[in-house]
Amino acid sequence: MTTQTQSVQDEPETQARSEAETLTLFLNCERFLSGHGIRRPADELADLAREAADTPESDHYGEGAVIEDFEREIAGLLGKESAVFMPSGTMAQQIALRIWSERKNCSTVAFHPLCHLEVDEEKAYQYLHGLRARLVGEPQRLLTLEDLRKIAEPIAALLLELPQRYIGGQLPEWQQLVAQAEWARERGVALHMDGARLWESGPYYERSYAETAALFDSVYVSFYKGVGGIAGATLAGPADFIGEARVWLRRHGGNLIRLYPYVLAARAGLRQRLERFPVYHERAKQVAVALRTVPGVVVKPETPQTHMMHVYLPGDMDRLLAASLDIARDERVGLFRGLWPTELPGYTKFELAVGEATFSLTDEEIAGYFARIVASSHK
Amino acid sequence: MTTQTQSVQDEPETQARSEAETLTLFLNCERFLSGHGIRRPADELADLAREAADTPESDHYGEGAVIEDFEREIAGLLGKESAVFMPSGTMAQQIALRIWSERKNCSTVAFHPLCHLEVDEEKAYQYLHGLRARLVGEPQRLLTLEDLRKIAEPIAALLLELPQRYIGGQLPEWQQLVAQAEWARERGVALHMDGARLWESGPYYERSYAETAALFDSVYVSFYKGVGGIAGATLAGPADFIGEARVWLRRHGGNLIRLYPYVLAARAGLRQRLERFPVYHERAKQVAVALRTVPGVVVKPETPQTHMMHVYLPGDMDRLLAASLDIARDERVGLFRGLWPTELPGYTKFELAVGEATFSLTDEEIAGYFARIVASSHK
Repeated sequence: MTTQTQSVQDEPETQARSEAETLTLFLNCERFLSGHGIRRPADELADLAREAADTPESDHYGEGAVIEDFEREIAGLLGKESAVFMPSGTMAQQIALRIWSERKNCSTVAFHPLCHLEVDEEKAYQYLHGLRARLVGEPQRLLTLEDLRKIAEPIAALLLELPQRYIGGQLPEWQQLVAQAEWARERGVALHMDGARLWESGPYYERSYAETAALFDSVYVSFYKGVGGIAGATLAGPADFIGEARVWLRRHGGNLIRLYPYVLAARAGLRQRLERFPVYHERAKQVAVALRTVPGVVVKPETPQTHMMHVYLPGDMDRLLAASLDIARDERVGLFRGLWPTELPGYTKFELAVGEATFSLTDEEIAGYFARIVASSHK
Repeated sequence: MTTQTQSVQDEPETQARSEAETLTLFLNCERFLSGHGIRRPADELADLAREAADTPESDHYGEGAVIEDFEREIAGLLGKESAVFMPSGTMAQQIALRIWSERKNCSTVAFHPLCHLEVDEEKAYQYLHGLRARLVGEPQRLLTLEDLRKIAEPIAALLLELPQRYIGGQLPEWQQLVAQAEWARERGVALHMDGARLWESGPYYERSYAETAALFDSVYVSFYKGVGGIAGATLAGPADFIGEARVWLRRHGGNLIRLYPYVLAARAGLRQRLERFPVYHERAKQVAVALRTVPGVVVKPETPQTHMMHVYLPGDMDRLLAASLDIARDERVGLFRGLWPTELPGYTKFELAVGEATFSLTDEEIAGYFARIVASSHK
């Protein structure tokens, strides 16, 4: 009790804000730096009801036109024979690696130390699938052909994440990617793409999604990042591979009786946003330039390769957050509502992902807000 | 080509109906023997949008009032400390058995030969969780205390399904259930309930759900059977058990960024239907009496214990189905659109589950339709 009172007195008033209060402040904002804006479930569902006008019937355990047509659409976009819609990428990627592991008769799979499977899935690849990980490369950077050449043991599959979220959405240069794919092919190693944000990579490579996907044996894509759906993922690959993935999907408990709300939202988002990704990429580069004019602010990568970047802020984490939330409250502008630690002493960071909402702020406004935020953290 | 043409000529015209045509016939029906009627996604989503009026914000990876409040509501109904909403029962039950297995340091779990885990999940309990099954009892009947007493090896957990779907929705008598629970408790065996249709069992036991659930260490319930939701399940139990289940949920890929469409539909269905289950049970008993007046028709159980029963029809499967689909087309009455094989020579069966739609047909109409269907199969 004493501690609590004291802490409120010691810290700025805004420190007392709970997670719920923070969220409420953001829900009340009118403009946002990241994403497509915060939508109320009632509005999202009303939109979906309109999207469902041409859908007379629900899907049923993975069957039915609404889900099968969308799977064909995604397979076509990725130039793969077949595709299966799943509730989550966590399922899709474990399933892909398990299948390649069984086919190659090898339990070891390789990925970057900051791969989603390594850091965000409670080590399910071990607990559920009995797989072992050979980590490749360094956490701070993209993995390279040199890193791959150091692998001295048999591996069933290599996972590459395009773009790699936890290092700011970085992409390997095309020739590097081709060389890594060749390395895998020559060794009989299956190549799987974590394409959670693949849609956002198209503008950088200036190639069709199918051309990029052609380097890979299997591809996972997501629909609730830049696409702006509700949830859901798709795994694409050869027909026999996808047939096997459907068996594993049932095992994972992901073959739901009805997935149509997710499918419809994914379909609507994709049709609306696929052509917007080049625009988001351009805007991301402008925003990065604006942010880098603020003394002390660091952007990674310095020139964004996709719609996203990590923004490093100097100063006290609590004060930085308080300053952002003050702006949310007073000016109804949502900049960031959480900060991650970094390896730089005195620096924290947040993830900035350009979406429709980002266009509500000018470069000057963005630079101005961050100048104020950084200044306030040094008070 | 020849075979196909021949088969069309040999069989009644209706035999040429594809799965899609069958579904379309049913979608165009105005009255149904089973369920709550077929709803178009657009209508279902429009209802959900209204249900979301009091929900200002989405859930986020299992957090947020919309999902947490509902979990508390279900935990309260079941008299358990805690509960977690999941996309599917397949996930919920594997997770429950894995946790009990780890806690008891034993890989063997026990269930009936027609348990969902044994017949509907591609043996995921083995492939994902490394569990072994000790099957208990005979496929044709409920398992008994005598069956349990024959278990001569250590088991971590016993799963009981209330009511047991694949034998027509049968329930053990209360004293038998209590005795089985005592058997488990005395041996330190965790008791898990497959309560996919538990809501529908309340009328038979004339006890609160909490009183029935109190016999069990963990309980899974579903929201898209009698409740009429879109999909989704909940696992309930002690707080530490549910905490652990949340880790496994993430591993399974079921900790979706947003589950609110399923949660809202489950909540709406439960509020609307919980008080209707006694009415469904009464109606099921009346329908069973009506069906048994039709010569040759067998109902299992003879007197339904819940909202459901299995209806055995004598005659040729294709002709029976054709007769049902003719009625769907000509009179817009949906009776059944698929038949399962049975062990009785010359008999097939379908599952009848009473819902709101069942009240659109009188006993006399039901008996009349089935008299016609059975007669046509002997032509």
